[in-house]
Amino acid sequence: MESKLQELKTRLTEIDDLESAASLLHWDQTTYMPPGGASARARQMATLNRLAHEKFTDPAVGELLEALRDYEESLPHDSDEASLIRVTRHAYEKAAKVPPAFMAELHSHGSESYQVWTKARPDNDFGAVQPYLEKTLDLSRQFADFFPGYAQIADPLIDFPDEGMTVSIIRPLFATLREQLVPIVQAIADAPPVDDSCLHQTFPEAQQLAFGTDVIKRFGYDFERGRQDKTHHPFATKFSLGDVRITTRSREDDLSEALFSTMHEAGHGMYEQGICMDFEGTPLANGTSAGVHESQSRLWENIVGRSRGFWRFFYPKLQSTFPDQLRRVPMETFYRAINKVERSLIRTDADEVTYNLHVMLRFDLELDLLEGTLAVSELPDAWRERFQADFGIVPPDDRDGVLQDVHWYAGTIGGCFQGYTLGNILNAQFFETALNAHPEITSEIEAGEFGTLHGWLKENIYQHGSKYTAPELIERVTGGPLRIEPYIRYLRSKYGELYPL
Amino acid sequence: MESKLQELKTRLTEIDDLESAASLLHWDQTTYMPPGGASARARQMATLNRLAHEKFTDPAVGELLEALRDYEESLPHDSDEASLIRVTRHAYEKAAKVPPAFMAELHSHGSESYQVWTKARPDNDFGAVQPYLEKTLDLSRQFADFFPGYAQIADPLIDFPDEGMTVSIIRPLFATLREQLVPIVQAIADAPPVDDSCLHQTFPEAQQLAFGTDVIKRFGYDFERGRQDKTHHPFATKFSLGDVRITTRSREDDLSEALFSTMHEAGHGMYEQGICMDFEGTPLANGTSAGVHESQSRLWENIVGRSRGFWRFFYPKLQSTFPDQLRRVPMETFYRAINKVERSLIRTDADEVTYNLHVMLRFDLELDLLEGTLAVSELPDAWRERFQADFGIVPPDDRDGVLQDVHWYAGTIGGCFQGYTLGNILNAQFFETALNAHPEITSEIEAGEFGTLHGWLKENIYQHGSKYTAPELIERVTGGPLRIEPYIRYLRSKYGELYPL
Repeated sequence: MESKLQELKTRLTEIDDLESAASLLHWDQTTYMPPGGASARARQMATLNRLAHEKFTDPAVGELLEALRDYEESLPHDSDEASLIRVTRHAYEKAAKVPPAFMAELHSHGSESYQVWTKARPDNDFGAVQPYLEKTLDLSRQFADFFPGYAQIADPLIDFPDEGMTVSIIRPLFATLREQLVPIVQAIADAPPVDDSCLHQTFPEAQQLAFGTDVIKRFGYDFERGRQDKTHHPFATKFSLGDVRITTRSREDDLSEALFSTMHEAGHGMYEQGICMDFEGTPLANGTSAGVHESQSRLWENIVGRSRGFWRFFYPKLQSTFPDQLRRVPMETFYRAINKVERSLIRTDADEVTYNLHVMLRFDLELDLLEGTLAVSELPDAWRERFQADFGIVPPDDRDGVLQDVHWYAGTIGGCFQGYTLGNILNAQFFETALNAHPEITSEIEAGEFGTLHGWLKENIYQHGSKYTAPELIERVTGGPLRIEPYIRYLRSKYGELYPL
Repeated sequence: MESKLQELKTRLTEIDDLESAASLLHWDQTTYMPPGGASARARQMATLNRLAHEKFTDPAVGELLEALRDYEESLPHDSDEASLIRVTRHAYEKAAKVPPAFMAELHSHGSESYQVWTKARPDNDFGAVQPYLEKTLDLSRQFADFFPGYAQIADPLIDFPDEGMTVSIIRPLFATLREQLVPIVQAIADAPPVDDSCLHQTFPEAQQLAFGTDVIKRFGYDFERGRQDKTHHPFATKFSLGDVRITTRSREDDLSEALFSTMHEAGHGMYEQGICMDFEGTPLANGTSAGVHESQSRLWENIVGRSRGFWRFFYPKLQSTFPDQLRRVPMETFYRAINKVERSLIRTDADEVTYNLHVMLRFDLELDLLEGTLAVSELPDAWRERFQADFGIVPPDDRDGVLQDVHWYAGTIGGCFQGYTLGNILNAQFFETALNAHPEITSEIEAGEFGTLHGWLKENIYQHGSKYTAPELIERVTGGPLRIEPYIRYLRSKYGELYPL
């Protein structure tokens, strides 16, 4: 069995090498690549991803996993080896169900559709993408049908990014959350607007980036095993457990842009930097789900980075960094500015409170499309109606409405968005658990110290990588299932103090 | 036949995608990778190179090439399609002769040996690497023996980087060159030393890099299809014909470091940027040999970049860039400083005149080792004796003697060095040909214009990529074989004016 396990690991490492190289090709594409490299680069990434997929779905991998079944069952469920075999088998069984020819069609259609979207969005032309989106919907349904036996057609699509999550778990949670959020947003909309002009002065980029770097070093992001570069749409990426990078962007007229994107991506990065080094090169060496990943980025960005305690320590430093701009701005003014809630059109610009309304709108529309209760041609109207219901305003055009996010136009319909809100819900649940275990975390944050929090996250979440599914991990860490109450408590407590809720 | 050719191209593109990704992994390793990424990165590069080699030596490639033989013969020899088939077949036949297991052993021994060398060099400990070098010599001989029928054992090793070149061609050329060079170096050594202190003031890096960038933009290096980054050991690399990058390094106390390395690597880069775009993804899309490649880097670095005409235009600009440092330095002083000839220990620091003595010393020792007339244990002594004979001085230790270059300690013995001197010889031969066709090149250089020269190089050399072997290309371009006379003329004319030869 030792030799079979070794052969499995050897194969997995080769696959990981291809995937890591594809990730580097992508990182370079979005950071340093000159314009002339674009067309070859797209092809190179497609080749490496295809080879990795072919090697992973090789029947020999299935045979190895089958041969290792008895061995796996002889080991404790939580052991690294049993977990490696179990997690690899789950991934293999999912991947092997989708024929390579279908994957190739899905990818090639996604690329074509993406090209059309890059023009259709600025042109505000939903009609141009509609036929592509109709085909995407058709392909998404076919994709789901490779997994017969699902309760809801979206379930297989959700299961890839968020294994163990289903429509029947998520839908009621989201409905309750929406019921809570809509009146909060309404109450805030009726309150006098917060003045956030202190964030919109001129802040030179170099100082912004240096300040952000200092913050995330204190969080525990390890620059010996990572780095930060500039890009258009910030992301975190892993080339190995010793090389987990983040990217950021800045605006000289918006102090919050680089600062919070840096903390957000550092949260993703620290998660993967904290995975047990023994998992290197295997499917265990990744964050366990989109939702748990997002919980880590949002925890550092919002719960820590937008807290009053955090700024008690850092605001004087920020003032010394930008004395002309902030010397006369009281901390409370700054604190309210970075936590300003407003009804805006764009998801990625949204604040902590309204963000989930953007996400749940998309999640519900995805389900309606997949279930056939909504036609693609009706999507722009459905978007406007729902937006009106949740935000009390209507997007003036499709550009900043149904066309704004790349997801549907480059991948599948279904499974794209739930992870963002699951992450928001989870970050509060995890943080509450950490605070119960270590109440001193609050005062440490006020002293610019994050060792206890970072240590707790490493111990309870990071180190395990994908060893446990999200539901298993949540149960292990919090003693129960995913719950929205901590998140509602967090929002009510924080924003109840800032606004008349 | 169309479909066979298409299948061949599809396979070659996939292989090129793997090789390009491996090149990016290497570029990143030497420019931006954090220290924690090192061990996984070495493995990732090895995996991609191995997969590329496996795919290229797949017998199906040989069968396709065989099936295409009649088609190839029906086409004009110079046509792109015939050239693609011919060049691919040559490369395939060479690659397929070496068993994959042997290649794996060679690479793994190379990595091991390199690790030992990185410590042995600073420790000045040849004894530590000697057993590794003995195995390398043994492997190099085995490598040659996969190509029975060679006239000289070094020929197969030379044929990989410099196809069509053999010991019987190179040895007499080098012997003549050496006869000419040794007395020149002796005469220069007897002359009063040139004062190059103007280069050794303090020159801030940013201005150095900006100046170099301006120079190579004027040469014609295309930043829309390339970029420059900092590294320890500068190199040029290609990820596609639309993305050919260069790297450089600078020393604040040595103005020549970044400047000439930038021009040198831009020469390599412009060669590959100038290859016919139709060759993308195929073996035609590379420079044709190590020697021709080096001729392009040395042409821009030395013949252009160290010429008096070039500095007539650029020296006033350099003075405005560094007014405090250069305002009082006459151009002639600067010109003599950048062309200072001196007997130094290190090849990579050597000037234009002595450089070839360093190279030929290594070339001859490689032959002696391969032919068995020199034992590895005798190598340090042989190095010192030859150095004494050529330079009139003896290296004080092995660190700056036989241990200085990585080549033998990480690859094979044989084929490593001839390309450098072939490049020097060729750059003069090509430039003389260009000047005969376009005498206005001289005055254009004095006006900071390089369009005619760059255009001639593109037309005659760059665009062809690997379509012609070096001997074929030299014949096409110059109307005859490789000749050292233009190079000797160039050196005698340039240095005869600077020194009493």
